[in-house]
Amino acid sequence: MPYYIGDVIRDDKRLIARTPEKFRETGIEVRLNTRVDEIDADEKVLRLSDGTLLSYDVLVLGTGTTPFVPPIPGVDLEGVFTLKKLTDALRIKSHLKDGNCRKALIVGAGFIGMEMVEALRLLGIETQIVHRGTTPVNRWDPELSGLILEALKRNGVPFLTKTEIHSIEPGKDHLLRLNTNRGELEADMILLALGVRPDVRLAGELGLKIGRTGAVQVNFSQQTSRGGIYAVGDCCEVFHRVSKRWVHIPLGDIANKQGRVAGRNIAGRPLSFPGVVGAQSFGIFDLELAATGINEKEALESGYHPVSSVTWGNALAGPMPDQKKVGLKLIADRSTGRLLGAQAVGEKGVVSRINALSVALWSGLGIDEIGYLDLAYAPPFGGSWDVIHNAAQALARKL
Amino acid sequence: MPYYIGDVIRDDKRLIARTPEKFRETGIEVRLNTRVDEIDADEKVLRLSDGTLLSYDVLVLGTGTTPFVPPIPGVDLEGVFTLKKLTDALRIKSHLKDGNCRKALIVGAGFIGMEMVEALRLLGIETQIVHRGTTPVNRWDPELSGLILEALKRNGVPFLTKTEIHSIEPGKDHLLRLNTNRGELEADMILLALGVRPDVRLAGELGLKIGRTGAVQVNFSQQTSRGGIYAVGDCCEVFHRVSKRWVHIPLGDIANKQGRVAGRNIAGRPLSFPGVVGAQSFGIFDLELAATGINEKEALESGYHPVSSVTWGNALAGPMPDQKKVGLKLIADRSTGRLLGAQAVGEKGVVSRINALSVALWSGLGIDEIGYLDLAYAPPFGGSWDVIHNAAQALARKL
Repeated sequence: MPYYIGDVIRDDKRLIARTPEKFRETGIEVRLNTRVDEIDADEKVLRLSDGTLLSYDVLVLGTGTTPFVPPIPGVDLEGVFTLKKLTDALRIKSHLKDGNCRKALIVGAGFIGMEMVEALRLLGIETQIVHRGTTPVNRWDPELSGLILEALKRNGVPFLTKTEIHSIEPGKDHLLRLNTNRGELEADMILLALGVRPDVRLAGELGLKIGRTGAVQVNFSQQTSRGGIYAVGDCCEVFHRVSKRWVHIPLGDIANKQGRVAGRNIAGRPLSFPGVVGAQSFGIFDLELAATGINEKEALESGYHPVSSVTWGNALAGPMPDQKKVGLKLIADRSTGRLLGAQAVGEKGVVSRINALSVALWSGLGIDEIGYLDLAYAPPFGGSWDVIHNAAQALARKL
Repeated sequence: MPYYIGDVIRDDKRLIARTPEKFRETGIEVRLNTRVDEIDADEKVLRLSDGTLLSYDVLVLGTGTTPFVPPIPGVDLEGVFTLKKLTDALRIKSHLKDGNCRKALIVGAGFIGMEMVEALRLLGIETQIVHRGTTPVNRWDPELSGLILEALKRNGVPFLTKTEIHSIEPGKDHLLRLNTNRGELEADMILLALGVRPDVRLAGELGLKIGRTGAVQVNFSQQTSRGGIYAVGDCCEVFHRVSKRWVHIPLGDIANKQGRVAGRNIAGRPLSFPGVVGAQSFGIFDLELAATGINEKEALESGYHPVSSVTWGNALAGPMPDQKKVGLKLIADRSTGRLLGAQAVGEKGVVSRINALSVALWSGLGIDEIGYLDLAYAPPFGGSWDVIHNAAQALARKL
């Protein structure tokens, strides 16, 4: 009988509603709130923290990631959160429910932090971002992420840059006080949104090979370095089709694909995971952000000769009312003319364009071809020369 | 000095505002409302209808299309329109302006007719569609175009099927009466939206080769069968990368690309037109429709072995509020597993998905790969398994 061991059955309300009993009917034994203390891979036996021993033929590790918590005093205080699992979300919701949370601090400016800014502002909570760097979401270059800063400003969210956090302690006017190199900040809630690290405790104990990214090494069948043990999802690496490197990109869609690939291989219907191109998106207020491929720094590290350009256009054709600005940065390789990456930001049609460019990256298309791609033109959805065409042609002239 | 001869300078208000004098400053001689009566391609001389002779080194034909007008009595009556050029639109607007147009009939159910339905309904004009067939917009198969019928119903637009038109005459209660095999219909305006035919009068007189589509044959440099004469836009054919045939697809984005290709070649900076995949879209009321590639009938004609499936999904991830339905039909070739075409309809994210699939078609991707494409996942823009993935995997199981 297949076993599933974890604290929740996927972060999805519909699945959580399926109790372990429901799963047992379909032939799956589910054990929630269960910790695996030790794995004997020679004997193929797991020891749970309650002492139970479970034997297996095939083991799949889906241990995910753990949020990074900075080594400063006070991170355990009530009102200090990380956000990774559904249980984290439920804890945050319950903290907000009593109505005493009037002000929130978000430490970190990654996309989880950005999504939470919007959620908190929509609840009417005064929200402020505290960031070590100067611009939000590193994945997007400052030429584009500038639009996020404007959106934060429009929505009354201060963005504190170059701020190192030192400690958290009980506050005076609010529940908590955050001490930083730029002074004290008080709030009723502090969200530490400083990224995640692959959880490789069990993998390490099993002696599985860990990649340079810190995540579990797998092959195209999701097999780890040890026979009979697979790894899937945020705890393992994934092959990047553009950089040709194994990378760590903890995203839900990749995890889903890896799970299906492992399942197919375990079930004897072989399937290779074709890898990723690094497509990613999120929304904040009225902005869409999306990116794919690699940026100029990663391109240099991978041995390419990147050239880039930023093109501003519209998500709708010129004569349409209610124009929506779209910024598109393209990065190509000077020696081959191939697209290496794209970043976009705007009020509409951003994910749409990045998805088309993701397929172009997947297929290894060159900038010249991208300048003449056949896209589904109609004025409500773009110009007869789409911003994709204009951006590719502008970049082709620089090659 | 380059010459431009036509009735308007592109159907674009900003360009129309540029007078012939403005163009002359940039070195282009523009002659509006000018007809070319005859071309002597041996002597390289044009004769205009006022008798003027113009000589040329290179001639570009961009004669476009003419709307099909059925050979029935009454098509010349006041209030009967076709819609192809800006001047047609201006005539229709002026007819609507006097406020006496309370009811309109649209003959034909192509995408121009559909776009006009929405425009007229938004003006509060009672509008009815009269169609020879049973479903609108042939490009989309009935499984998907059914959503258009629902949208028409919701917006109070009757859709008369299997209706042949016999004649138009002055009406009693309204300006016009349309006589059909299903009775008389009265209206203050009749739009004949029955498609277009390539205008090859001059091309025919020049002895240029005309393709089986009825449009001017060109090569990948937009050269016609006669040296020194190029053709671009709706009057000529274009290479379809999926069917590998030369086809006639009169769309503005294709025309723009062909114009640029011809210009580059004439100017001595060679460029080949890479062809199209048949991407197309339009919007009607709250629906988006888009399609790309070829349908099952065209696939059979091109020697493929089509298999298809229709998948319904959402434009947003499952847990998001305000779900938006998307229907996606995929067609693949059984012998190679390659994608041949896609059709989509829905309330959001339709063009986005068809554009991604257009790039997949452009690159010749197989259905298996499309099932695992890396797309920019975030809940506001799609599920972790997008409808593209689900549709491709469903179709792969049928191959």
